[in-house]
Amino acid sequence: MSEAINLIDKLSKFNDFWSPRVIAQMNDYQVKLAKFSGEFTWHDHRDTDELFLVVSGSMRIELRDGGVELNEGDLYVVPKGVEHKPVAESECHVLLIEPKGVVNTGESDSDLKAENNVWV
Amino acid sequence: MSEAINLIDKLSKFNDFWSPRVIAQMNDYQVKLAKFSGEFTWHDHRDTDELFLVVSGSMRIELRDGGVELNEGDLYVVPKGVEHKPVAESECHVLLIEPKGVVNTGESDSDLKAENNVWV
Repeated sequence: MSEAINLIDKLSKFNDFWSPRVIAQMNDYQVKLAKFSGEFTWHDHRDTDELFLVVSGSMRIELRDGGVELNEGDLYVVPKGVEHKPVAESECHVLLIEPKGVVNTGESDSDLKAENNVWV
Repeated sequence: MSEAINLIDKLSKFNDFWSPRVIAQMNDYQVKLAKFSGEFTWHDHRDTDELFLVVSGSMRIELRDGGVELNEGDLYVVPKGVEHKPVAESECHVLLIEPKGVVNTGESDSDLKAENNVWV
């Protein structure tokens, strides 16, 4: 009997912010969960789009020409090469999908760079 | 100002079963929504894994060696080449992710084959 992966269960297993955990892999793409709180750093991913889906809470993806408000059940794909800065005024839980190996801070040099490929 | 894609809003825009609608694209992958009810057909996808995430309701992915029960917030990746049959006793709403061009019935010949790349 195979087992499903429950998002809420996986989210209960870690508490640090801006530190994505991998929960599944599909071909060479990884599904990650992350907890956001406060402001991340401006960055872009030169070689890939990045999918955000809000599981609970609210956040904003700042873009150089505006931004996108995301509430629970909202999805947004940041195109490759587009600078963005995730911001969450209150704690927000997010599902991310991107190719394996993508670093959370992209092309930027930032203390917020998280260890990659950490499963939960 | 860019706009988020809301899953519930997109699900309100179609009512037919087993007919996935594309809501977003990330690189060469598409995010789809589908409504399941009853039994689909046994099939596999020779060249790709396929991700299922239950948005609301419950379903089961039958596998030749068992199966997986999926409730709201549950995710499962069917590996490429693995025969599976989605079944939903009651209506179930599902988010799917797979490469653009994947046909819902995979390698099977079935009347349930849906038109591909239909956006909502």
